[in-house]
Amino acid sequence: MARNIVVAQSGGPTAVINSSICGIVMEGMRHENIVGIYGAINGILGVLREELANLREEEPASIWNLRRTPSAALGSCRYKLQERDFKRVMDVLRIHDVGYFLYAGGNDSMDTAHRVAELAAQANYDLKVIGVPKTVDNDLEITDHCPGYGSVARFNAIAARDSCLDTEAIYTTDTVKIIETMGRDTGWITASAALGRQDDELGPHLIYLPERPFIVEKFLEDVSSVYKRLERVVVCVCEGLRDENGELLKASRKAVDVDKFGHEQLGGVGDLLVNVVSEKLGIKARFDKPGTIQRVSMQCASSVDLEEAYRVGQVAMRKAIDGETDKMVTLVRAPGPTYKCEVSTVELEKVALKTKKVPDAFINDKSNFVSEEFFEYAAPLIGGTLPEYARLRKNLLQKKLANYL
Amino acid sequence: MARNIVVAQSGGPTAVINSSICGIVMEGMRHENIVGIYGAINGILGVLREELANLREEEPASIWNLRRTPSAALGSCRYKLQERDFKRVMDVLRIHDVGYFLYAGGNDSMDTAHRVAELAAQANYDLKVIGVPKTVDNDLEITDHCPGYGSVARFNAIAARDSCLDTEAIYTTDTVKIIETMGRDTGWITASAALGRQDDELGPHLIYLPERPFIVEKFLEDVSSVYKRLERVVVCVCEGLRDENGELLKASRKAVDVDKFGHEQLGGVGDLLVNVVSEKLGIKARFDKPGTIQRVSMQCASSVDLEEAYRVGQVAMRKAIDGETDKMVTLVRAPGPTYKCEVSTVELEKVALKTKKVPDAFINDKSNFVSEEFFEYAAPLIGGTLPEYARLRKNLLQKKLANYL
Repeated sequence: MARNIVVAQSGGPTAVINSSICGIVMEGMRHENIVGIYGAINGILGVLREELANLREEEPASIWNLRRTPSAALGSCRYKLQERDFKRVMDVLRIHDVGYFLYAGGNDSMDTAHRVAELAAQANYDLKVIGVPKTVDNDLEITDHCPGYGSVARFNAIAARDSCLDTEAIYTTDTVKIIETMGRDTGWITASAALGRQDDELGPHLIYLPERPFIVEKFLEDVSSVYKRLERVVVCVCEGLRDENGELLKASRKAVDVDKFGHEQLGGVGDLLVNVVSEKLGIKARFDKPGTIQRVSMQCASSVDLEEAYRVGQVAMRKAIDGETDKMVTLVRAPGPTYKCEVSTVELEKVALKTKKVPDAFINDKSNFVSEEFFEYAAPLIGGTLPEYARLRKNLLQKKLANYL
Repeated sequence: MARNIVVAQSGGPTAVINSSICGIVMEGMRHENIVGIYGAINGILGVLREELANLREEEPASIWNLRRTPSAALGSCRYKLQERDFKRVMDVLRIHDVGYFLYAGGNDSMDTAHRVAELAAQANYDLKVIGVPKTVDNDLEITDHCPGYGSVARFNAIAARDSCLDTEAIYTTDTVKIIETMGRDTGWITASAALGRQDDELGPHLIYLPERPFIVEKFLEDVSSVYKRLERVVVCVCEGLRDENGELLKASRKAVDVDKFGHEQLGGVGDLLVNVVSEKLGIKARFDKPGTIQRVSMQCASSVDLEEAYRVGQVAMRKAIDGETDKMVTLVRAPGPTYKCEVSTVELEKVALKTKKVPDAFINDKSNFVSEEFFEYAAPLIGGTLPEYARLRKNLLQKKLANYL
């Protein structure tokens, strides 16, 4: 029976979520029992508002070029379905004869997809709902990792590496460099900066994840210790760091803003720690906060991530047509020395609203860096080694004069 | 007469300053009257400390790969020569029989180079001193532009464009995006974000340069006006913005740090304006601050910039061998529709310590964006058009139900 599909994007944009949409649309076009291919504008809001774009009217080149276009081309949202919306969702799906609903997003979005699947089941309406994993946060359960993560990880690895070279060159003025990365409750993104480490001297030297309480005194000891050895320190911190009492670290004056899912707006850790380092250690510090730039950088996108994002979209479409529903597509890492992921599915309710933290084994004993196991896990995801930079030997000439300065 | 050369780097790192060093060394190797090719470690400090690396002992591949290596491979410094140092400089140059001194840096560094040239002249010591322009700030006089600028401009153009796509996709939560770019006294870097503008709707919508006093009330009016039209705003601001009284805009609590040239440490404008927008307009805002990452991003380096940086290094070496001294190499834009730069020289004292501001003609009448003339000036410097992104038409299906939400 010929039916229509609705595809939508939700949550924070990434470098590769459009690649998943491309995979869904290209796969959808291959099946003759798919009639309309509609994109809901701004996620579930587009369903509620009945704002459905006809994706068959797009230029094929535009659809194809989604694979190299960051952000979320259909528009995104952070909207939690209310009970009053339930009837409306079904009305819209029904009147447009939607048989397939594909929703790309993170754990909040998987909850939305799960609710839609339940609503359809309760209404005895034939709807196949498949979630497409997407989140730079990499915090979805079950799946080995989430499309979007490999690219933000590559961005942060490169940014950390560049910052280390920068700090090495000008350490007399930019002595302590603090890089604040994204990450609400988990340190996956922050941890990825470690992949930019060329060697122990160059750095990054310290990494702090929200999986461990952040103790200012210990942080200062760590910074002092590296500073004594190298006269410079590169530190990567997560915007979602919390203290011993579970309180978010933030400049006190900052008004706390809360989004529609009840999440507090973060940011400010870098700034705060710059002040702590200057005041307590008397060392000049500076912070970088690439902010949302890190999540939509196509320049730094991981080739592995782009390919996997496309593939999860493609498989999501195929699974829906094959009759699976109320599931999310997952990446399953094949055992063995060569990196490879298969694609499978899991029940949506097993991932909805759940958060996968960075496991203990990925954090070092001192809680100030990642472990070797993290490197093994994450290195294949960023799509190959980082660009090779020159390192000079700098063999010094024999001095002929007395020391000076 | 066979003599040795000393090459050194000074000031803030860039994506392409190593390309200039590569140009100097490769050119030096072609001349049989050049014996030793020495790199001073950390700029003029390396001369004072007699820390000179023998660059002939480097792997040729490492020297060549400097063209794709960001930061400053020989190390940099921000050190102002003191009178007590004068004798020492000459002692070191003399004992190592240095006949050529090539110094890559900005306007402070050109002052250092000029002083060294004067010292040699006063001492009747045969030394050819050539400055190699390098600064992301693009604020050196006489030269059309400075190597380093095209790449930081490309980074900011891409970052602004990515941020605009990001904000368009998720405007319901990230409504006002403020990007804080580098720039102490001039708005060249901030202005470059305009090169990421695909169209008026996408943005960036507002750009504020330190060449104009920053009036908070006017800024709020500008933001409101764009917000009313588009429900989202992307604003690019310079870290060096000043108010009507010439005071630096900064969060009041921030201790002012001063470097060895007497420059205050900047930063904090983005954070400040986020608070202003939330408090005064009640709109949710967020800031990104790529910080030093923007100046050393090889991923975003401009091909034109990389080539020109190499060329100014090469020509600097040749000019020195030809007997020119106390000069800086300049880029001179050839007239005509096709972008092309010749290389020339200018007396160091004409550029030392001088600052070229963004001219009035490059700023719009409302002082909240750049002019078309700026686009004409800067577009060729970033090395070709930005990567093409897909833009969907999003032809909406006819609605069949009543409006909702």
